[in-house]
Amino acid sequence: MAIKEGIRTGGRSARVQESIHAAIRDLLLEHDRATISVPMIALRAGVTPSTIYRRWGDLTSLLADAAVERLRPDAPINCGNLRDDLQSWTEQYLDDMNSAAGREMMRDVVGSAASCSSKCASIVRDQLQIIVDRALVRGEAAPPAEELVDAIVAPMIYRILYSEAAPTLERMFQLIDNCLDRYR
Amino acid sequence: MAIKEGIRTGGRSARVQESIHAAIRDLLLEHDRATISVPMIALRAGVTPSTIYRRWGDLTSLLADAAVERLRPDAPINCGNLRDDLQSWTEQYLDDMNSAAGREMMRDVVGSAASCSSKCASIVRDQLQIIVDRALVRGEAAPPAEELVDAIVAPMIYRILYSEAAPTLERMFQLIDNCLDRYR
Repeated sequence: MAIKEGIRTGGRSARVQESIHAAIRDLLLEHDRATISVPMIALRAGVTPSTIYRRWGDLTSLLADAAVERLRPDAPINCGNLRDDLQSWTEQYLDDMNSAAGREMMRDVVGSAASCSSKCASIVRDQLQIIVDRALVRGEAAPPAEELVDAIVAPMIYRILYSEAAPTLERMFQLIDNCLDRYR
Repeated sequence: MAIKEGIRTGGRSARVQESIHAAIRDLLLEHDRATISVPMIALRAGVTPSTIYRRWGDLTSLLADAAVERLRPDAPINCGNLRDDLQSWTEQYLDDMNSAAGREMMRDVVGSAASCSSKCASIVRDQLQIIVDRALVRGEAAPPAEELVDAIVAPMIYRILYSEAAPTLERMFQLIDNCLDRYR
């Protein structure tokens, strides 16, 4: 099925995107990331490779886009206070990012077009904003979400990308407390 | 000049590596990063492409290795006190990392073998350790270098990799002060 027109408009475009994302999800369950190619994805999704190249440019950008789509947030768990909310969110996020799939995703996202990495960063900030807003409604003091990004997310991602070992959960909790201490 | 044996031992190996790194430095002055290929580098360095593939695996890893080599530190400037030393180092590092060459280097390093990114991280930590050691000798209180990595380096690199805009120098100085405040 060759789709050569109207790729960016209306329901057809959305269906094409969904079929391509679904093809990637399926292929990642069956194959190693390094062996997946644009023609494989196109064949599974029932589109031509040129549809993919025209829309995403290259394989890295396509995989990054699909990964960010999978990242779409559930609302963070509400534990009833800011510190527990942040600990719970951080534990989950560390698990996700430090998994083999998470590390591959980060490399795809960082290596792809800037819009994809900034979409990824804003999903994370939005989740932290939900947690902050809840705390403020409860009457708790809370740092701005941007401060939490620098204090918690940045060290985690830096160390996963640049070190052989991810930070421990204990270290992550200490980083949370360091940041909260400045806003008591 | 085909070099097929002894690539990892002795002076010959070091000379080959130096000629390849020099070829990359020259080519980066003349060409856009995206147009540089392994055969171009091999031709300029007077080696066969297979010498490069055998030793570095792929272009990204080779460029990352050469970039880390260029990064080799001069000793950080000594301003006579910890805060000024950190501000001076941070200003220079932000300039380097936020340049077009710095951003390309980061993408190569993050996309390459883990050993290269961890080498890169340890050069940075060693520079901060020099600054911390100087402060302790002066009798100043100082955070461990690892704390400075999390507080200063991680947010800078995260925001350059994931946001459209790098942090401002003003914001970086605020991050330095936040960290120093915990160690007064």
